[in-house]
Amino acid sequence: MPSYTAPVRDYQFLIDHYMGLERYAEVEGFSEARDMAPALLDASAQFTQEVLHPLNAVGDKQGLKYDNGRVTTPEGFKEAYKQYVEGGWPTLTWPTEFGGQGMPEFLNMPMLEMVCSANLSFGLTPGLTHGAVHALLVHGSDELKQKFLPNMISGAWSGVMCLTEPVAGTDLGLMTTRAEPQADGGYTITGNKIFISAGEQDQTENIIHLVLARLPDAPKGSKGISLFLVPKFLVGDDGSLGERNAFQCAGLEHKMGIHASPTCVMNYDGATGYLVGAPHRGLPAMFTMMNTARLYVGMQGLGVAEAAQQNAIAYAQERLQGRALSGAKFPDKPADPITVHPDVRRMIYIMKAFTEGARGLVMDTALHIDLAHRHPDALVREAADDYVQLVTPIVKSFLTDGGFETASTAMQCFGGYGYIEEYGASQYLRDARIAMIYEGTNGVQAMDLVGRKLPHDTGRYLSRFFHPVDQFIAENKADAAMAEFNKPLKQHVKYLQQATMWIGAMGMVDPNHAGAGAVEYQRMFALVLLAYIWARQAKLALQLREEDPAFYDAKLATARFYFTKILPQTTGLLASITAGAAPVMAEGGF
Amino acid sequence: MPSYTAPVRDYQFLIDHYMGLERYAEVEGFSEARDMAPALLDASAQFTQEVLHPLNAVGDKQGLKYDNGRVTTPEGFKEAYKQYVEGGWPTLTWPTEFGGQGMPEFLNMPMLEMVCSANLSFGLTPGLTHGAVHALLVHGSDELKQKFLPNMISGAWSGVMCLTEPVAGTDLGLMTTRAEPQADGGYTITGNKIFISAGEQDQTENIIHLVLARLPDAPKGSKGISLFLVPKFLVGDDGSLGERNAFQCAGLEHKMGIHASPTCVMNYDGATGYLVGAPHRGLPAMFTMMNTARLYVGMQGLGVAEAAQQNAIAYAQERLQGRALSGAKFPDKPADPITVHPDVRRMIYIMKAFTEGARGLVMDTALHIDLAHRHPDALVREAADDYVQLVTPIVKSFLTDGGFETASTAMQCFGGYGYIEEYGASQYLRDARIAMIYEGTNGVQAMDLVGRKLPHDTGRYLSRFFHPVDQFIAENKADAAMAEFNKPLKQHVKYLQQATMWIGAMGMVDPNHAGAGAVEYQRMFALVLLAYIWARQAKLALQLREEDPAFYDAKLATARFYFTKILPQTTGLLASITAGAAPVMAEGGF
Repeated sequence: MPSYTAPVRDYQFLIDHYMGLERYAEVEGFSEARDMAPALLDASAQFTQEVLHPLNAVGDKQGLKYDNGRVTTPEGFKEAYKQYVEGGWPTLTWPTEFGGQGMPEFLNMPMLEMVCSANLSFGLTPGLTHGAVHALLVHGSDELKQKFLPNMISGAWSGVMCLTEPVAGTDLGLMTTRAEPQADGGYTITGNKIFISAGEQDQTENIIHLVLARLPDAPKGSKGISLFLVPKFLVGDDGSLGERNAFQCAGLEHKMGIHASPTCVMNYDGATGYLVGAPHRGLPAMFTMMNTARLYVGMQGLGVAEAAQQNAIAYAQERLQGRALSGAKFPDKPADPITVHPDVRRMIYIMKAFTEGARGLVMDTALHIDLAHRHPDALVREAADDYVQLVTPIVKSFLTDGGFETASTAMQCFGGYGYIEEYGASQYLRDARIAMIYEGTNGVQAMDLVGRKLPHDTGRYLSRFFHPVDQFIAENKADAAMAEFNKPLKQHVKYLQQATMWIGAMGMVDPNHAGAGAVEYQRMFALVLLAYIWARQAKLALQLREEDPAFYDAKLATARFYFTKILPQTTGLLASITAGAAPVMAEGGF
Repeated sequence: MPSYTAPVRDYQFLIDHYMGLERYAEVEGFSEARDMAPALLDASAQFTQEVLHPLNAVGDKQGLKYDNGRVTTPEGFKEAYKQYVEGGWPTLTWPTEFGGQGMPEFLNMPMLEMVCSANLSFGLTPGLTHGAVHALLVHGSDELKQKFLPNMISGAWSGVMCLTEPVAGTDLGLMTTRAEPQADGGYTITGNKIFISAGEQDQTENIIHLVLARLPDAPKGSKGISLFLVPKFLVGDDGSLGERNAFQCAGLEHKMGIHASPTCVMNYDGATGYLVGAPHRGLPAMFTMMNTARLYVGMQGLGVAEAAQQNAIAYAQERLQGRALSGAKFPDKPADPITVHPDVRRMIYIMKAFTEGARGLVMDTALHIDLAHRHPDALVREAADDYVQLVTPIVKSFLTDGGFETASTAMQCFGGYGYIEEYGASQYLRDARIAMIYEGTNGVQAMDLVGRKLPHDTGRYLSRFFHPVDQFIAENKADAAMAEFNKPLKQHVKYLQQATMWIGAMGMVDPNHAGAGAVEYQRMFALVLLAYIWARQAKLALQLREEDPAFYDAKLATARFYFTKILPQTTGLLASITAGAAPVMAEGGF
């Protein structure tokens, strides 16, 4: 059976030192958040380790029961959700006027990762509710907000996002679900949706569906889509639950992983709905919450990776097999632990370089989300939002690719035991795979990066990365101890600039030049971004080493591994990007 | 439901042109093999498409039944195995004196791939029998051969390999299973083995276990292991089946994939066994058949990749979503097929570059196995065997890594449908993963490559690759049409030589320098090896284009993709290899 220990120490390091929060003393909520962090980290660790983690294998094995529209979650999931709500966990970052605690988003990240590590399936329902709350907050009328938000924010009700139809996945313009205006000013919704995560479950009293549909006068394509709130139970003006709305879960998908998360086929049969935002403006409304949702899915990759990695390291430290190449390390034992073997060490460092680097990226991103909302200076807000726009596709894609890769590396550390279900490595691998697909496939993220983010305002988004990293490189030029990080960082930032210029210039000649190398560019950007993050962590480790030598020596070792063994991948990616469209667009190849 | 069409055309190309069989007219069996190939390819295709493929999803879903030592395979598996035996498939390459057809090994490869594509779980039982036959042929006494081989070669009886114990996986020296000599000259075997594929099943009348165990006077470690033949049913001198031997299948593992292949816990409780080969020489005996077994496991990666790829391409060609970046290609349809999108095309070419390149590697390797056994000239035999020694770890690791990567890429082409079990992409991914682990993990293969194969006789094995590739480069220097392949091939061969020299020289200073970069070196070698294979396929395509423009244009397009988009990965690998041991062996990192 796998075990799980929340990475409290690493988060405390990020919050205390890495994020540089001392620069933002004037930002509302930041100093309270720092004060709250230690207790919150401990409480998050306790809840996820003791309540959610033990249910993870149970959920995978039992799966869900479906019976005539009703979905039953696995043993213990309902009670765990109740505890999650009673602990006030869903409310942390939402406005106080709707029952939230008004804390910054970055304070939510540790718990989010821990939930995904401990029990990814469990985490999907509150994660989707978070997205639905966000959409309502920004686009809902005051009346809808008053009626629905308090119970959604408390977690008493859940929220789900209903976009996909059998013929309309990435291309939402093809959707056919209809909305008919009614005499009373409301709407009825009719159509079929698929792949609706948590569309039906038994954990909450009500489920609030946010459904994309077409009004009768809708223009064709994606500009004719409107967003509707469609509650499972209608809600009276006094907040009481009324009659059951006219929609049903028609079945569940049988998936490779996340077996405890219901993936629903939903049929809406003249269901009562309420317009959210303006008519035909549903897609932009959905997109305002996409950034957060994509960050959340990225966190799923990180969370599963962390859990998989911990178990692989623990196994490797105990498994005795073979002898060190340089001679037996533990001659009194029948064999050495496999952590003496260079390739096992390499695999462990690959995992750590990913998870700890990704954690830095997540906290950077969350900080910028908070600055974009809370900073008093409009220029700082704009710059922060630009950064979030830029890195969101990278966070989603790199962290979910890395989640799956790490789960596979962890399995390899286990040898044959990795393939046996009871050791847990398989569940992590199976669960992690979905995150590369949903909330926009990682290929779609890459098109967002090269097609929208890169050219925006002649590279304004890009400058939010290149300027600070150039500044960091300049600041550390004279620091001899930093040279082993700073020099390759400078070199690889230059490679990234070359790739960026190539895609920018050649993409104008033919958009397929940008499209053909988009995924490689996205990965290259992520690798250089992580180099910047690791260089900053290394710098702090050099400065703070005396405070906790074991912790900071591990940081330095992992940073060195990252720079020498992983970062060099960029050169091959640069060559592949600049190969352009021809080898990819060639006709007749298949 | 997934579909499968055997790659008959590609194999016919390899046999007719790529392998250059006309150079070996004097080798026994080669010209008969060429004559037989077309009919054999068609028959293989028919059997695997019509009999094995329809059972693949059944096997995954139903899995195996275990009841008090008995294992029941899924519906249809027993009958399919019977047909497989009746078709004479297991006998193709074995000596005629034991009922084989005496054909060269290369003729076995197409069927082997097709079986793995159509139904990997099914393929394991005959695959393991093949390995057991090989071990007995080389090391068994005449008496054992006469008694057991004819029924094993016909497929009436199966053979299994019993190596692993709970504490002894890669490090077989730790095993504890005991062999006690008996008064009658026989032995009794007592101990527990795990992860025994097909250790028990209901498809054959008898199951011949080849078990590694220790004699009472055995030296410690791997030099004290002997090999025993332990039949499920004892066999009389007249070949009749006698009493049930004293061993039992104590249970089955629950695995991520290959659900229809029984992975058995075996308990030997004073079972009757017969010594195979000399006492304490069991491990070398096992290793003589390891090369073939590793090639076979590599084929599993290729087979699953081919099946996964076919279904992904078919899906992508039918799935309408979005429009081409350069404007609608099919304006009369609601959307374009996703094959217009550069990233989908990129994924398809990645898969094709792998499967078709890997197929070339497999046929090269099989040809060299045949030359090593059949060529009249001892020098040619030696050179061919050297080549097989060199590439075996690469075939096993690169083809199984690629099998899993391709299955994952195929899943990504499917979008959300890829994660749903009924579409089949999940089974390919889950099935493919084991091949990276068993028959020596891919990390163990890399240690074999850098630790044994690379230094052997001051690089004699290496010369069997570097000499012909250098010769090819020289021969094509003046060919303008070949320049786009020949120039990068030359460049990347040079990189590989740099990496080889670095590992050779620095590995003598500290073996961890070789160990730390072994996996990267193995991958780099594979990438350059595939470049050589693709250059040769491209050359043939240029020469033969008129014969079949569609086929050869596809070859050229895929070769171009390989050289421009995949091969450049070597530069990052070279940097990672030459980073040496320090970043990996650093203490305190975890």
